[in-house]
Amino acid sequence: FDAASAALARERDASLTKPPGALGRLEDLAIWYAGWRGAPLTALARPQVAVFAGNHGITARGVSAFPAEVTAQMVENFRHGGAAVNQLAAVAGATLTVHALELDRPVADFTLGPAMTEAELVAALRTGWDAVDPEADLLVTGEMGIGNTTSAAALATALWGGDPEGWVGRGTGIDDAGLARKAEVVRAGISANPEALATPLAALRCLGGREIAAMAGAMARARAARIPVLLDGFITCAAASVLARMAPGALDHCLAGHVSAEAGHGKLLERLGKQPLLALGLRLGEASGAALAIPVVRAALACHTGMASFAEAGVSDA
Amino acid sequence: FDAASAALARERDASLTKPPGALGRLEDLAIWYAGWRGAPLTALARPQVAVFAGNHGITARGVSAFPAEVTAQMVENFRHGGAAVNQLAAVAGATLTVHALELDRPVADFTLGPAMTEAELVAALRTGWDAVDPEADLLVTGEMGIGNTTSAAALATALWGGDPEGWVGRGTGIDDAGLARKAEVVRAGISANPEALATPLAALRCLGGREIAAMAGAMARARAARIPVLLDGFITCAAASVLARMAPGALDHCLAGHVSAEAGHGKLLERLGKQPLLALGLRLGEASGAALAIPVVRAALACHTGMASFAEAGVSDA
Repeated sequence: FDAASAALARERDASLTKPPGALGRLEDLAIWYAGWRGAPLTALARPQVAVFAGNHGITARGVSAFPAEVTAQMVENFRHGGAAVNQLAAVAGATLTVHALELDRPVADFTLGPAMTEAELVAALRTGWDAVDPEADLLVTGEMGIGNTTSAAALATALWGGDPEGWVGRGTGIDDAGLARKAEVVRAGISANPEALATPLAALRCLGGREIAAMAGAMARARAARIPVLLDGFITCAAASVLARMAPGALDHCLAGHVSAEAGHGKLLERLGKQPLLALGLRLGEASGAALAIPVVRAALACHTGMASFAEAGVSDA
Repeated sequence: FDAASAALARERDASLTKPPGALGRLEDLAIWYAGWRGAPLTALARPQVAVFAGNHGITARGVSAFPAEVTAQMVENFRHGGAAVNQLAAVAGATLTVHALELDRPVADFTLGPAMTEAELVAALRTGWDAVDPEADLLVTGEMGIGNTTSAAALATALWGGDPEGWVGRGTGIDDAGLARKAEVVRAGISANPEALATPLAALRCLGGREIAAMAGAMARARAARIPVLLDGFITCAAASVLARMAPGALDHCLAGHVSAEAGHGKLLERLGKQPLLALGLRLGEASGAALAIPVVRAALACHTGMASFAEAGVSDA
């Protein structure tokens, strides 16, 4: 983070033809963005939406309203432009990249032991790291993976504590019995993986999934490349939580794109100390909510770079 | 409103490759929009942002942090592309039209009697009516007018009741003494204009301003032309309140683009029964908050028209 660029942006913001603070969060956003990019005047030129897909052994436990084969079918849908995120990325002027992680080899059922081996975890983190376009100037990560709200709830339970009941939600639309089953599966996962509580990475390996690990890898790469990130929903924020629990400030380059309708997401954002830009009741994942927030970033930068100062416009100051 | 088009849109929405309801408010938005346009499949092609400017005799009472000449200076700024709304309209892919209403002839100081004559009110309503592009497929109205949060607070007090203190806010950034002065000016305006309580149009004539009347005229025209409207901030919603108090359902073609940081706006939205799309702490007026929400409408329509159905994409349904 370049404090000098942020200070220059703050100074410019104060000169623009509006009452101080009148653009609300758009002003903070532009200043934050300038600091992360190390540039006082910037426009959004190359946002990237990266969607990661993975499969989960716990789908055998009846935790989802949809069958596991939907993960691969939706990846095809992404590739043919038919999913929500295709439309949302296009509206946002963003490039969409889709990364399927060994869909024919689901991670292991975590109620029976670790979801991934060390090697599998590293490979998934690496896929995420490599997926980031180093020339991107904004990154949104998202996911597709039938069963992964259960995996994310298990991760949240291990990383943040509390009862599984406080972290499970309806996902793609499971009923009350399914919801109770999800909590039981999470509880069984924690019991079967005592090592998950040792370190955040161990939690990710034992309870996560490849797409979740890949998102964590992508967020870490974005930090290294000074690419600001918009966080999507519950599962993305479970991935982000791994980084947050590893190092304080690890998510300073991330903003919350939205708060979803999935029960645990608002709670997770509170733990991460992130206030969402949007709250429109989405609960789809696949980067949709954060992609919808890209135009807010674009607008903040457009105001910051395009507006005239009081002096330039000949407008009397207060 | 064409219920058949809305029903077709609802049916299409249910077929798209997402769990039911997973796009949250985007789904309702697309269905509402289809109903108002009378078309089941639509994209946003021609949104219009119309900004109206007017001056106010009550500026002599010290109700604003900025001098009255700023209204005309900001109109010049709009015309040269230097204001926030220029950047926001561009990001939204919208046409911006600017309408200055007799800036050299402020409406009368309403603490001394009616702000406008009947003829002045009709002319201002007419300006708003004529400003709407009949080919537009979405309308955002906004305003510029030093002193007009005081006028809007007086209008809100007359139309919705309650103490002036409950409706005044800091506008462009007035201090505590100024805030108390605003409430006194509103109280004096209500006392000096007993006829303002007779009808909503009388309230508009006695306590409003030309730009406020023009916004009401534009919203009425949009209704006649079946053009959906996004409402901007406190002053826009004061104008909208005139229509709402004239006829129940008069604002059914309007959504709240955002809720601003101006104290009375959230309260006004409650009275209007409108839930804002955005809440980003803006308090600038000039259509900025609602212009920022245009991409949300664009995204909703893009998902609705561009997504594949389960059958088309070969995705297994729940």
